[in-house]
Amino acid sequence: MSKIYHHPVQIYYEDTDHSGVVYHPNFLKYFERAREHVIDSDKLATLWQEKGLGFAVYKANLTFQDGVEFAEICDVRTSYQFEGKYKTLWRQELWRPNASKPAVIGDIEMVCLDKQKRLQPIPDEILAPLSIG
Amino acid sequence: MSKIYHHPVQIYYEDTDHSGVVYHPNFLKYFERAREHVIDSDKLATLWQEKGLGFAVYKANLTFQDGVEFAEICDVRTSYQFEGKYKTLWRQELWRPNASKPAVIGDIEMVCLDKQKRLQPIPDEILAPLSIG
Amino acid sequence: MSKIYHHPVQIYYEDTDHSGVVYHPNFLKYFERAREHVIDSDKLATLWQEKGLGFAVYKANLTFQDGVEFAEICDVRTSYQFEGKYKTLWRQELWRPNASKPAVIGDIEMVCLDKQKRLQPIPDEILAPLSIG
Amino acid sequence: MSKIYHHPVQIYYEDTDHSGVVYHPNFLKYFERAREHVIDSDKLATLWQEKGLGFAVYKANLTFQDGVEFAEICDVRTSYQFEGKYKTLWRQELWRPNASKPAVIGDIEMVCLDKQKRLQPIPDEILAPLSIG
Repeated sequence: MSKIYHHPVQIYYEDTDHSGVVYHPNFLKYFERAREHVIDSDKLATLWQEKGLGFAVYKANLTFQDGVEFAEICDVRTSYQFEGKYKTLWRQELWRPNASKPAVIGDIEMVCLDKQKRLQPIPDEILAPLSIG
Repeated sequence: MSKIYHHPVQIYYEDTDHSGVVYHPNFLKYFERAREHVIDSDKLATLWQEKGLGFAVYKANLTFQDGVEFAEICDVRTSYQFEGKYKTLWRQELWRPNASKPAVIGDIEMVCLDKQKRLQPIPDEILAPLSIG
Repeated sequence: MSKIYHHPVQIYYEDTDHSGVVYHPNFLKYFERAREHVIDSDKLATLWQEKGLGFAVYKANLTFQDGVEFAEICDVRTSYQFEGKYKTLWRQELWRPNASKPAVIGDIEMVCLDKQKRLQPIPDEILAPLSIG
Repeated sequence: MSKIYHHPVQIYYEDTDHSGVVYHPNFLKYFERAREHVIDSDKLATLWQEKGLGFAVYKANLTFQDGVEFAEICDVRTSYQFEGKYKTLWRQELWRPNASKPAVIGDIEMVCLDKQKRLQPIPDEILAPLSIG
């Protein structure tokens, strides 16, 4: 696994639901934002415009251990590893302020697709800067 | 103005926020869903794929008069008129069950844009079936 | 497992992202809508208001096998089973029109929580009508 | 009007739709985030928990002048004024990087409501620090 990257997420009205805590699908949004900061959003935009390649979530296994409340500034902790030329595995956790365990844990598999939704090897311009060790 | 079209919207968890009512930007979503049912979503999809034309909101004036709660099935009431070749004006209201006034009122101006975001006349295949009188 | 329940979902602008297909966290929304139609949203609203009890997703395992496009009317297929007094397991699939396999598969574990986020047994008014066989 | 406050908004996948630009209701989200940073989210959370008071959008007039794209980091510019004891008027603009005019302009009226959705005067702890001059 890579080192752990940190990405802050502030909880706004838009994030909560009438039960008083963050609506559960939104954690997938925060995890994606955090991955984009690891990979570099501008690089992703260029890859899409120039080569028609994008990353897609293939699997997502989520465990929800605690509710997250309005106005909290949380920490998304992200690490990853490559598995062959086609797949990246991401371990992502969202931590509330001062928490002793993650509120949400996600194991995410990403693949690279072209505009016809065909599987493609992860391009070198993404792979190289993320390679570990 | 055209006749009034009715479109039902059920309020789910995803629609509410921690104040206990529907999160205000979501009403723009319901208004768009209702407009798509007036225009015909398949026709919009074809227009986008074959001619690269889409509709965009140019102006939206919203008044929020009442909170809307989880599990309510509301009625979106939509009417429209054309203004020249380039603009459609939509009057849209969201009514809670058994209400005596609309919870939210929207006056929406739509224009037609190509993929370079240039203004285009509203295409005949949209205009003709919606023409009044 | 229970019988399979069907719930239609139409894909609107709000559901898609700039890659041209449905944004992946939204499938969790459709799965929740479908579960609410199985359980009965009014019953959920009453349970929350009168007893302060709500259902929460504890685990969600998702597999994304196909992209879903604007204007499609998809079919969410839902079945469930109870596991003891505290847990329900839901198998949910989203099918595109005329598809030969599901576009998205979800295995969802739900638990019942009070307003202090403490685990509670699933209340009888939910359990009884859903009990199988 | 107050001075102009700046709040950055990065555009992620979640923000765009299949037309390739930001989905129009989302600008109301960005405007709300920016207002919360002016007012102070922690103060809003306390006001809600301790006094049962929240802010609600009463009117929103929006003009959409330009599409906003994935990966852009935009600037939300916010100023406000009070009108009597009950109303605040907010002028909010979203600017794309290097733009010569705002992509979206919003004029937002906010009021203060208690949990029974009754109008309340804006509380002093909000009013005092925001008072101008």
